[in-house]
Amino acid sequence: MARRKKSYDFRFPPILQKLKRGPQIILPKDLGAIVAYTGMNKESIVVDAGTGSGFATIFFASIAKKVYSFENKREFYEFSQKNIKRSGLTNIIHTFDSVFDGISKIEDQIDIIHLDVPNPETIFSSKFNLKEDGYIVAYLPHTEQVSKFVKTAVENKFTCFTIEIIAREIISRDRGTRPQNTGIIHTAYLTFCRRENTGE
Amino acid sequence: MARRKKSYDFRFPPILQKLKRGPQIILPKDLGAIVAYTGMNKESIVVDAGTGSGFATIFFASIAKKVYSFENKREFYEFSQKNIKRSGLTNIIHTFDSVFDGISKIEDQIDIIHLDVPNPETIFSSKFNLKEDGYIVAYLPHTEQVSKFVKTAVENKFTCFTIEIIAREIISRDRGTRPQNTGIIHTAYLTFCRRENTGE
Amino acid sequence: MARRKKSYDFRFPPILQKLKRGPQIILPKDLGAIVAYTGMNKESIVVDAGTGSGFATIFFASIAKKVYSFENKREFYEFSQKNIKRSGLTNIIHTFDSVFDGISKIEDQIDIIHLDVPNPETIFSSKFNLKEDGYIVAYLPHTEQVSKFVKTAVENKFTCFTIEIIAREIISRDRGTRPQNTGIIHTAYLTFCRRENTGE
Amino acid sequence: MARRKKSYDFRFPPILQKLKRGPQIILPKDLGAIVAYTGMNKESIVVDAGTGSGFATIFFASIAKKVYSFENKREFYEFSQKNIKRSGLTNIIHTFDSVFDGISKIEDQIDIIHLDVPNPETIFSSKFNLKEDGYIVAYLPHTEQVSKFVKTAVENKFTCFTIEIIAREIISRDRGTRPQNTGIIHTAYLTFCRRENTGE
Repeated sequence: MARRKKSYDFRFPPILQKLKRGPQIILPKDLGAIVAYTGMNKESIVVDAGTGSGFATIFFASIAKKVYSFENKREFYEFSQKNIKRSGLTNIIHTFDSVFDGISKIEDQIDIIHLDVPNPETIFSSKFNLKEDGYIVAYLPHTEQVSKFVKTAVENKFTCFTIEIIAREIISRDRGTRPQNTGIIHTAYLTFCRRENTGE
Repeated sequence: MARRKKSYDFRFPPILQKLKRGPQIILPKDLGAIVAYTGMNKESIVVDAGTGSGFATIFFASIAKKVYSFENKREFYEFSQKNIKRSGLTNIIHTFDSVFDGISKIEDQIDIIHLDVPNPETIFSSKFNLKEDGYIVAYLPHTEQVSKFVKTAVENKFTCFTIEIIAREIISRDRGTRPQNTGIIHTAYLTFCRRENTGE
Repeated sequence: MARRKKSYDFRFPPILQKLKRGPQIILPKDLGAIVAYTGMNKESIVVDAGTGSGFATIFFASIAKKVYSFENKREFYEFSQKNIKRSGLTNIIHTFDSVFDGISKIEDQIDIIHLDVPNPETIFSSKFNLKEDGYIVAYLPHTEQVSKFVKTAVENKFTCFTIEIIAREIISRDRGTRPQNTGIIHTAYLTFCRRENTGE
Repeated sequence: MARRKKSYDFRFPPILQKLKRGPQIILPKDLGAIVAYTGMNKESIVVDAGTGSGFATIFFASIAKKVYSFENKREFYEFSQKNIKRSGLTNIIHTFDSVFDGISKIEDQIDIIHLDVPNPETIFSSKFNLKEDGYIVAYLPHTEQVSKFVKTAVENKFTCFTIEIIAREIISRDRGTRPQNTGIIHTAYLTFCRRENTGE
C-alpha cells in the first residue's frame, strides 16, 4: 500500500526518507552538488538557512561536524524541529532567528554558509566569521536572483560560479532504455562564492 | 600564470584541487549525486573501485568513516597512491587487487559499493558483506551498460534506479545571464541498487 | 472556459491546433528538428509512416510539395483521415498499408522518409526510390532502437547521426525568470541517415 | 581531407551546407523550432532581421512564400547577399536597412517576424502589418533580454511563451550508445508572441 510514495522515497537517502515534508525541500541532486562543489566533510562547520522543513540541515549534519541552522518563521521552525528530532542527529544548533542577525553570534570559524532565503545577498552586510577559503552558497530559483547575488558578491570581493543541476531519471526495462518522459525540470540555480584569489 | 587551469580547478572542492589528474576522473556533479542519493555520511563504510586517479576515493574518504579502494592496474594504483598521500587522509585502505576478488575479504559491514570498472555486474557473482539496506552504485558511460547492470541486479533481487546528472554552468555578468555556450554534456549514468523491499 | 487546454494548444502551430489528438503525437520540438536537419522545403517529396493521429503528416504537408502517408491500423487510419480533412490540405496521399510494402509503389523520387513505426530498420529491406542525397529519419523512443536502426543503416551503406531535442519552457513574469518546474523530459531520439559520402 | 568540417556540415540541411559562415549563425535546432512553433509554411510571408550571414533567411525562404530580410551593417549585408545568391532562391527581398524602419514599408500582410537583433522589443514601437494571428519571434541569448522582450510585448497586448531548445547528439557505435561528451550547450532562448486571445 502507498507504494507510490514509497517508490518516490527510494530516490531520497535513508536519513531523509524518515522525515516529514514541508512545502519546500531541496532535492538530493542539489544537496549533493552543494556538498561536492564546496567539499563539505567531517570537519566542516556549516551554516544553513532557512531551515524550512529541515532536509538540507539534516543532510548536511549527517556529513559535517556541526550545522548552525536558522529559521525565522515560527511555523517552519517548529516543523523542522520535529524532523531534526526524528533524524537522531545531535550536531545541529537550531536557532529561531534570521540568519542575517544570528550568524554574527557564531564563534566557530565557518566553512560553508548555505542560504535558501529571500534576498540572500543581505549576507554581505552581516558580520560573519567565514574561513579565508570558505564558501557562501545560495539556492536561487530565478535568474534575476542569480544576477543580483553575484553582483553583490563581486562588490564584496568574492568570486562566484553558478551551476544548474538537472537530474534525468533513466528507465531501463525489458522493452528498452530511455529517459523518463516527464518530471522535474528545474528547482534552482546554485551560486558558489569564495573570497577573491582564494583556493585558486 | 596558468590561470586557465586554476580557474577550472575552482569548480573542484579544495580537497580535490591539490591532486594530480590521471586520464579519467569523476566530476563533482557525479560525486555529489553518489553521496546524496545513497546518504553517505560520517558512519559509512564505503568500497570504491577502480581507484583510477583517486578522486572518488579521496572525496568519499573525506566524508565516510572508512573507504576500501581497489585498483588492479599497477600504473593507476601507483598514481592514485600518490594522490591519497597528498590528500592527507588516513581512512583509506588501498589495495592492489580486483574489487571482485578483494571485496570478499572485507570484514566490515559495507554501506556503499561504488563501481567504476568494466563489467560492474560481475559484483553480483562476488561474495560481499553489504548491509541489508546498503547501496551498490555503478558509474556507467553507455546505455547498454545501464541495461546490463540493471538486468543482472534485478536477477539478484536488487531494485534499481538510474540518474544522469547534467550540470549547466550559468554565466552572470554585466552584459547578461545565460548558460555557458559549450561544455561537458555527458559523463556517465549512475545506477543505484538496493535489495528488494529495502528502505521502501 | 477550458483555458488550460487552449493555453497548451498555444505551443502548437495554428495548423495543428485545430486537429483532434490521438494517443501518440509528435511534438513541435521534434517536427521542427526533422524539417531543419533534413532541409524539408516546398519542393520536397516526403514519406511519413505511421500516420497515427496525422500531426506529422499534416505538418510536413504544410511545408512539402507532397506527402505520402501510410498507416496500417484501421482505427488510426480513420482517425487521421478526419484530421487530414480538417487540415484542408490536398497534397497528402493517405494510404491504408504498411509503409514497408507501400513505399515500393511510389513513382516520385523521395526526398525524406520519416518513420515512426515499430522496427523501422525494416525499411532497408524494402524497395524505395530515395534520391541520392535523400534522408531516412526514424523517431525512436528507446536507445536500443537507436542502436539497432543505426547498425542496420550502416550495414546498408548509410551514414547516420542521432539527435535528442529537449525543449525547456522558460517562464518570465514580474517575480522572475526561470525554466518551468516540471514538464516533458523525453519523447524520442531522431536518427537521420543518408547514403555514405552523400552531401558530405 | 578537411573531414572534420565536412562531418560537422552533415548536421546542416543541404541548402545551408553550401553557404559560407559568418560569425553568427542560427543552428538547425533553433531554425526548426521557429518553423514548428509558428507553423511557417508555403503560404507564409516572413520578415527576418538581421540577415547576418543569411542562414535563417535562406532556410525560411526555402519553406515560406516570401522572406523580407533586413540588415543594417554593410559588411553583413554584403556577406549575406553572396550567400543568398549561392542559395539560388528568388523569393528573398533583401534590404539594407534597419528592420525597425524598413518593416513599415512592407505592403504584404506578415505571418511571422523573426528578430535576431539588439533590442528586438523596439519592434513594438514600429508600424508593421502583422496578421491578426501572426507571430513575432525573438532570438535572445540572455535571460534579461527575454524578460525585457516579454514585458514590452505584454504591455503591447501580446501573449508570449519562451522555449530553449537543447539538441543533444547521441553517439551509437559498436562499443555502446551515449550522448556526446562535450558540445554546444546554449545558443539562445526563443520567445514567441501573438496578439492576446489569438488562436487560443
